[in-house]
Amino acid sequence: MTGIFVVFEGGDGVGKGTQAALLVQWLRESGREVVLTFEPGDTPVGRQLRHLVLDHSTGDLDPRAEALLYAADKAQHVYEVVRPALARGAVVVCDRYVDSLVAYQGAGRVLTVEDIGWLGWWSVAGLRPQLTIVLDMDPRGAVGEIAEKDRVESAGEEFHRRARQGFLDFAAADPEHYLVLPARDSIEELATAIRTRVNSLLSDPPDRL
Amino acid sequence: MTGIFVVFEGGDGVGKGTQAALLVQWLRESGREVVLTFEPGDTPVGRQLRHLVLDHSTGDLDPRAEALLYAADKAQHVYEVVRPALARGAVVVCDRYVDSLVAYQGAGRVLTVEDIGWLGWWSVAGLRPQLTIVLDMDPRGAVGEIAEKDRVESAGEEFHRRARQGFLDFAAADPEHYLVLPARDSIEELATAIRTRVNSLLSDPPDRL
Repeated sequence: MTGIFVVFEGGDGVGKGTQAALLVQWLRESGREVVLTFEPGDTPVGRQLRHLVLDHSTGDLDPRAEALLYAADKAQHVYEVVRPALARGAVVVCDRYVDSLVAYQGAGRVLTVEDIGWLGWWSVAGLRPQLTIVLDMDPRGAVGEIAEKDRVESAGEEFHRRARQGFLDFAAADPEHYLVLPARDSIEELATAIRTRVNSLLSDPPDRL
Repeated sequence: MTGIFVVFEGGDGVGKGTQAALLVQWLRESGREVVLTFEPGDTPVGRQLRHLVLDHSTGDLDPRAEALLYAADKAQHVYEVVRPALARGAVVVCDRYVDSLVAYQGAGRVLTVEDIGWLGWWSVAGLRPQLTIVLDMDPRGAVGEIAEKDRVESAGEEFHRRARQGFLDFAAADPEHYLVLPARDSIEELATAIRTRVNSLLSDPPDRL
């Protein structure tokens, strides 16, 4: 595979979508084929699964079942969208990936980060991004900016604090493949920092896929 | 948990449903509370998942996604149906369980039996039956008796041969918790052998749950 895989991670409301769109626009202006995608839900199967998980009407969902449904979404998304795009040399920019699964499902204290990590990386057959950009924000600031309410977002501040720590831990363990930025920086400051890092990634041959 | 958990395993068309129903009838006549259930699909979430997996119209399903959806069905089923019934002392008789997941998903040569085993037992949080009854039949005989056609059943004889071997391997590795019977025996012969084994299980205290 000759493409480049870039992921945005972080809490809800930190501006991942905005920065992903700006990065994609900049990459397209440089003439690259770019695929902008997201998890969960960006396949036909994934849309059904996301609806199933978020729909309170199906009743109480087992935490393991929930984690497995998110993992199934990731498996199908990588199989159907990410790998084919990377195989033809595109840059894939993805809003949330395995780290979100592990950070959120592991933040509920019911399931271990180790187990969810196994599950998440197994579901994508070990496909790791060359770069994960974490937009970091204190959840006390971010939660107020969330409009939509679903299972994840109603789970409270302590949950979001642990998820945030998860993202920071993943980045600290593998700094070569992470860029952590303070999400409170201005849109332009963030976009510039992201372009600089992605630019150096594009000039060097990818070290893994 | 004070209940007893009995599982029927084996290929399609070997008579699991018939024997499960006869066992349940016999147990009820003895005054026990019995819950007869099945996997996949015996919860509201599970019905949606089963439909999603079997529906060819969603397109090509990644083998990992398929395994994860079946595992999610198991997680929800154990959480919603099996554990509560066992907790109140019922006998739970289940048509297919983790062994089916591992035997079938591991029989396709894409995924390893070890990985699917981890996934399956994790999904049910390690809940193992006191007894698994394998109705064993050469798939050359069984496949002709299948009416419904879906992903699993259209996969061919070699696939079914490997799945059968999976069931036999699980039983051989843990004979204390398995009863393997030739599915070609008469309905009455099978029912008698099953009652004898279940009766001895009911007289002894369960060794695990």
